[in-house]
Amino acid sequence: MIDQANGRRVLPAFALATLVSIACAATAEAQVTSNTNGMTANATRMEERIQRLSTFGANPVGGVSRVAFSQADLAGRDYIQKLMNTAGLQIRIDTGGNIIGRREGAVPGLPPIMTGSHIDSVPGGGNYDGDVGVIGAIEVAQLLHEHNARLRHPLEIVVFADEEGGLVGSLVMTGRLEPAALDVVSHSGKTIRDGIRAIGGDPERLAQARRKPGDLKAFIELHIEQGAILDEANVDIGVVEGIVGIRWWDVTIEGMANHAGTTPMNRRRDAMLSASELTLAVNKVATSTPGRQVATVGRIRADPGAPNVIPGKVVMSLEIRDLDAKKIEQVFDAVKAEASRIEKTRETPISFAEIKVSSEPAPTDERMRSIIAAAAKSLGLSYRLMPSGAGHDAQDMTHIAPTGMIFVPSVGGISHAPKEFTKPEDMANGANVLLKTVLAIDGGALQ
Amino acid sequence: MIDQANGRRVLPAFALATLVSIACAATAEAQVTSNTNGMTANATRMEERIQRLSTFGANPVGGVSRVAFSQADLAGRDYIQKLMNTAGLQIRIDTGGNIIGRREGAVPGLPPIMTGSHIDSVPGGGNYDGDVGVIGAIEVAQLLHEHNARLRHPLEIVVFADEEGGLVGSLVMTGRLEPAALDVVSHSGKTIRDGIRAIGGDPERLAQARRKPGDLKAFIELHIEQGAILDEANVDIGVVEGIVGIRWWDVTIEGMANHAGTTPMNRRRDAMLSASELTLAVNKVATSTPGRQVATVGRIRADPGAPNVIPGKVVMSLEIRDLDAKKIEQVFDAVKAEASRIEKTRETPISFAEIKVSSEPAPTDERMRSIIAAAAKSLGLSYRLMPSGAGHDAQDMTHIAPTGMIFVPSVGGISHAPKEFTKPEDMANGANVLLKTVLAIDGGALQ
Repeated sequence: MIDQANGRRVLPAFALATLVSIACAATAEAQVTSNTNGMTANATRMEERIQRLSTFGANPVGGVSRVAFSQADLAGRDYIQKLMNTAGLQIRIDTGGNIIGRREGAVPGLPPIMTGSHIDSVPGGGNYDGDVGVIGAIEVAQLLHEHNARLRHPLEIVVFADEEGGLVGSLVMTGRLEPAALDVVSHSGKTIRDGIRAIGGDPERLAQARRKPGDLKAFIELHIEQGAILDEANVDIGVVEGIVGIRWWDVTIEGMANHAGTTPMNRRRDAMLSASELTLAVNKVATSTPGRQVATVGRIRADPGAPNVIPGKVVMSLEIRDLDAKKIEQVFDAVKAEASRIEKTRETPISFAEIKVSSEPAPTDERMRSIIAAAAKSLGLSYRLMPSGAGHDAQDMTHIAPTGMIFVPSVGGISHAPKEFTKPEDMANGANVLLKTVLAIDGGALQ
Repeated sequence: MIDQANGRRVLPAFALATLVSIACAATAEAQVTSNTNGMTANATRMEERIQRLSTFGANPVGGVSRVAFSQADLAGRDYIQKLMNTAGLQIRIDTGGNIIGRREGAVPGLPPIMTGSHIDSVPGGGNYDGDVGVIGAIEVAQLLHEHNARLRHPLEIVVFADEEGGLVGSLVMTGRLEPAALDVVSHSGKTIRDGIRAIGGDPERLAQARRKPGDLKAFIELHIEQGAILDEANVDIGVVEGIVGIRWWDVTIEGMANHAGTTPMNRRRDAMLSASELTLAVNKVATSTPGRQVATVGRIRADPGAPNVIPGKVVMSLEIRDLDAKKIEQVFDAVKAEASRIEKTRETPISFAEIKVSSEPAPTDERMRSIIAAAAKSLGLSYRLMPSGAGHDAQDMTHIAPTGMIFVPSVGGISHAPKEFTKPEDMANGANVLLKTVLAIDGGALQ
């Protein structure tokens, strides 16, 4: 039915009846066909579970600080395993500490369809980032369980370990975690090595958690948008075109530190002025170049940093993101050209040092986009193709499986903050699109 | 004689013979008259003493870190007292920790003429700031002593305590130190209270160090310029018109912190962009307004300060200096007008909170300027009237005595840094102008 308030459709229970047409004719599929009638996500149950999950690591301002490997994370993971149990899933922890709940398929030897997200949060985070994808995936498994609907493929629900600390669980699963990362101290105070051990993994045998290309039929991640595009445009579903690439630089501007009282204005080589001009130039380049790229100066330090000393040096961050690596390069080139102009005019050399955290753009599988879009459309939901500006475990999974991502709206675009919020009906819409996508893939839509 | 290299005169020994004409006809003055012949500062001795003083708190890069109340400061003060002793001065430490070396005058009851500066340094400072004024004042006393020249007035050579920590010694002497300042922790790690005690003062009885208006005949401070105006214009002596007023503000720019990946460029309220625009506006206002005012943004912090988060808040410093309080106000008003425009355009509220360290402009005594200028001229030295952009103990002394200041060139304008340098002949020129100024005042030029 139409929700008059915002023009979006809330999926009626009978809509999923159309799913039967997707299933194939084998015995196993016949079971699906007979049981998908009436399968629809329970928004109230999902919201209750989100609320319950929010008690683990709850902070006084209404969000959670459930950083990976903390006591709160452990408690949250226990709760999720109880839900998986209720949904009839067989649970194991892989050596990377990822929780995997499995529902066997009807056809022997078929690779699993995997879906899931994470439940660890940033410090001072909200109650929806990651959680909606996990609760939504369990909702799909529980619907199949309650309706005794057996898929042809196994279904695996995954809770990735330490997403917020650098996609640790999905890097392990795709065999891409740098060994040195194990020594990094996480927000919990534990090294990632000790953290993986604390949640039941085995950092000495990470290779056992690895999935190779072909091991999975597909991977799908449901997630909140963490931006305001869907919310402002009143669109139900985001069909993610890919996870943007991210490049970081430390930008150093060299001026001449001097006494702010005795140095006349026309005798200064003030690094702050060049930094200010460059910051505005970064913004101008990013906004005037056609496309959806973003560029940000988020951190800045002036040396020596006293009110009465002309800054002799400024170091600031530069981040550029886009779905296209060439576009990132193009924006960076334009920024460098501006820097070159500024350093000449103001006699303040400017240098760029790239930071190694950069990640390549990770486009989703085009067929997966089509399946997700078709699922949304058939459910009467509005949708939009869009990039993900944030990083997700899905970007690692693109290396080993056809990957798709489903976004649901974040109210006001707020994320990584206690006020992060996604409406129950939007979570249910996401779970329904996820269910329909899984069924479509299981039924042969992904060839 | 003319120094062909830079066109400046180095004062020949016989030039000071002209001083006799200044002295009056009384018995005491007759003594002066008979002994000023040949009194001229010894550039070599001054340079040797500067070098020796530089060993106390010497740092590996050629400067000193002789912060007030440190062991290095105590050792430097001991050395200065030895020099004072050699110059025949009677030494005492007042309750503020100021060292005062006194040479009695010939006429009972006349108020002392005081001159001096400080020997404490900033961390990582140079070897001339303050030191030249102390060594120069002792040079004057030593010349009088060696020539057995008795002035009519007593002469007091002062080494002010903790100048770099906020003009502490001169604030005590002028009865203007806020009691709360005693609790401030200085660079030495000691509170100012404990520091004053460590150098022989008595923080419980500071009032005893106080000099009232009329207690001193005059105060003169010799100092390096700390800027490049004299050096670049090849002028020997700066006749200081006054110490500029200083006002400081913390400027807070409120934006909206948000995810730098998921927030499109046109949906941002980025506090960094407004801060950058305002920083450039501050510079534009300061450079486009006629006059010699300076304005500086020296410190900046972006919150939360991560490369992947759009800054939700920026706090930066604003400092404005000028010799005229109205000019400071005018510049600030223009900056506020720019801020008002920026906060509207970018939807980022901007507020200014004034910091209490501000100091009012402190003009020197017009008669003192004339006496100093005449002294320089009679010595064949070039001179220029100029403001002091830096703060000095002299600014406090303007509240209780006719005050004058003599600047000598800083090579390259470098100060508060190891490369700070003033040539021996320039130090000697300064000491000679100081001597002639003292003699002129003693002889009745200040009426």
